[in-house]
Amino acid sequence: MSDVVNVGILGRGTVGGAFRRLLNERADMVEEVSGRRPRVSGVLSRKRGDFDRILARSEIVVELMGGVDPALEYVMQALEAGRHVVTANKQLLAQHGPDLVNAARRGGAQLRFEAAVAGAIPVIRVVQESLGAIPIEKVFGIVNGTTNYILTEMRRSGLSYGEALAQAQELGYAEADPSEDVNGADAAAKMTILARLAFGVPVKLDDVPFEGIERIRPDDLAYAKELGLSLKLLGVAERVGDDAISVRVFPCFLYPGHPLAPIEGAFNAVMVEAPTITEITMSGPGAGGSETASAVLGDVVSVISGGSPLFEENARLRVARDVEMAFYLHLEVEDRPGVLAQVAETLGQNEVSVRSVVQRGRGDDATLIMVMHPVSEKRFAAALKKIGRLRFLRSPPRSIRVIEEEFG
Amino acid sequence: MSDVVNVGILGRGTVGGAFRRLLNERADMVEEVSGRRPRVSGVLSRKRGDFDRILARSEIVVELMGGVDPALEYVMQALEAGRHVVTANKQLLAQHGPDLVNAARRGGAQLRFEAAVAGAIPVIRVVQESLGAIPIEKVFGIVNGTTNYILTEMRRSGLSYGEALAQAQELGYAEADPSEDVNGADAAAKMTILARLAFGVPVKLDDVPFEGIERIRPDDLAYAKELGLSLKLLGVAERVGDDAISVRVFPCFLYPGHPLAPIEGAFNAVMVEAPTITEITMSGPGAGGSETASAVLGDVVSVISGGSPLFEENARLRVARDVEMAFYLHLEVEDRPGVLAQVAETLGQNEVSVRSVVQRGRGDDATLIMVMHPVSEKRFAAALKKIGRLRFLRSPPRSIRVIEEEFG
Repeated sequence: MSDVVNVGILGRGTVGGAFRRLLNERADMVEEVSGRRPRVSGVLSRKRGDFDRILARSEIVVELMGGVDPALEYVMQALEAGRHVVTANKQLLAQHGPDLVNAARRGGAQLRFEAAVAGAIPVIRVVQESLGAIPIEKVFGIVNGTTNYILTEMRRSGLSYGEALAQAQELGYAEADPSEDVNGADAAAKMTILARLAFGVPVKLDDVPFEGIERIRPDDLAYAKELGLSLKLLGVAERVGDDAISVRVFPCFLYPGHPLAPIEGAFNAVMVEAPTITEITMSGPGAGGSETASAVLGDVVSVISGGSPLFEENARLRVARDVEMAFYLHLEVEDRPGVLAQVAETLGQNEVSVRSVVQRGRGDDATLIMVMHPVSEKRFAAALKKIGRLRFLRSPPRSIRVIEEEFG
Repeated sequence: MSDVVNVGILGRGTVGGAFRRLLNERADMVEEVSGRRPRVSGVLSRKRGDFDRILARSEIVVELMGGVDPALEYVMQALEAGRHVVTANKQLLAQHGPDLVNAARRGGAQLRFEAAVAGAIPVIRVVQESLGAIPIEKVFGIVNGTTNYILTEMRRSGLSYGEALAQAQELGYAEADPSEDVNGADAAAKMTILARLAFGVPVKLDDVPFEGIERIRPDDLAYAKELGLSLKLLGVAERVGDDAISVRVFPCFLYPGHPLAPIEGAFNAVMVEAPTITEITMSGPGAGGSETASAVLGDVVSVISGGSPLFEENARLRVARDVEMAFYLHLEVEDRPGVLAQVAETLGQNEVSVRSVVQRGRGDDATLIMVMHPVSEKRFAAALKKIGRLRFLRSPPRSIRVIEEEFG
């Protein structure tokens, strides 16, 4: 074996450029820790470079193009030809992960993707390796920095969703087209990847229902602030019963003291729960160019040093379609006798049990804020649909999930 | 190669027992993820078992005896005989780490020790592998659960140090002889290990000055609570200038918003700072039997799956003896004119600059609480010595370090 390891880079964008600079800067250190010196054997962009030529010359292919086409074709070819692949491409993994893992097996190659989830926070490595033989119960967290930035600013400054989004765009925390971030799709892709690793279940992107933060209003945040709650966009993957897992993305109130409550701004944080370890929380900045490049470099070093990451398939688990959650319900109603009773009756008919109610009058109208005990999401959705048809409602009902206090 | 991997266990204590149970329980999963099934080939205690026989039969030796003698001899023999070693023994590593690493190199064996620092939080793996080629600036955190439990209870309930310690002992968070925990020596051993990995410097236990929490008084905590500060026992390893690192353990005030401020009870948390990643925070429960056993199992799986951990030596860095810190100073003084001026003059003569002063009278006496700007620890110690000789002092001066607000 030569002392040089040839690294082909696909992608010339922000992350591609940051990785190329970092690889050159840290070549000495990579050589010291891994015994071999990395050298860039070629760089491909959509316009320039010849993939076949780069493939022929590279031992490791680093895919930083983003998107599925043509990244999928290149990565499949590379793996089948026995080239190790490091990628930061969450859409590629979320949509085609199991195929890529199979291609890596066929080619005898390694596939690493730490940078695809939570930037420089080594959540993939921890779930795959440190906890590889531990039965994980739940992996969840804040895996989208844009939405966390927006929610933090809405709570802190009382901005509307639109104002906070505009500010995030100005400061570079949100893209010009932020829809994948704010509607929860980006977080859903990341949770698909995490759930597969944590539970060995071939979760498909379609298995992951997601809600975003576009409908969050300043008065939801005002309510949160008043009660000391935080509002976060959470991705959750967890065991449900003996034979199922559930993977979802939704905005959610967190009680004070919850380890994710203090995570602010564009930061990400992931918690892993398992019986033998209780819980581990990891947090850090979301995926900027340099964080992503660092995570990619860590993967490149691991590939050079040998030692495949671990995959385990678990045929015993299915993906559940319904789980229990607590809910906050915000209603604008006519202020007249019998309204609360009718709402409560509708909830009761659907076996939704109310934990607390606050009613505030404002002239002829009133605001009803209720928090439910945990209940099947389907039952609550059914109740909500019926409540939406009640004649005394001034505006459509709004609901947000609530994580119960667990830590004191 | 056989499909079975023989694991010899040294130690029959709490952790040894927990690991043995976990290994049996998770043997199927270890086989699935690593391709080989672990089997316990022998268990050695101080009273029972034959080390040579276990060594001859084992491919991996798991050392969970604790202490240096006879663990050192056993682990050295095992490594030199080419047996991979997994250990949770922080004293062994802190005192003899570099010798063990050399023995592992000579024997062509792996040495892994995730469980030696911060329980199930995978800080060793992250520093060694994910960040293996990243220039780390600082690794610091709460690496002793006993002291964090005591400080949390003192702050929460106004207990004295002695009362909180007694409560911790009752609940199993502190040993019958808690001295190594409360005087900072346990944290110093862990920081020695972390500093070596993060900076590649052969730090010796003697290079790490440590202070414990025995002298912390309820009124220090009352002060902290009043200003919204947290008081933590911190271990810090950081670069100082171009050619040095500093490794220390000390109690310290943290401003609100600091990621370590919300870490309460027996939890541990470690932060890693580096330019390309900003900062990563990892937290979880400290080292109970099951957390330690889980971390050991993770190491065993990594050993079976191949891929050595990475070690890098850095000859360019020395261990610094002095660094700059901010300090809180608590003085009980006679309440008469000129006292503040004399204290300020003594500080000024030693180039210690005062950031804030609060003076509270209580009859003939007064309490002076001052916070300094960052200053050389040696200069501050010199100033403190002189202040201790001032005639109007009612009791010896008390000082605690302060971490400046950095996060907003």
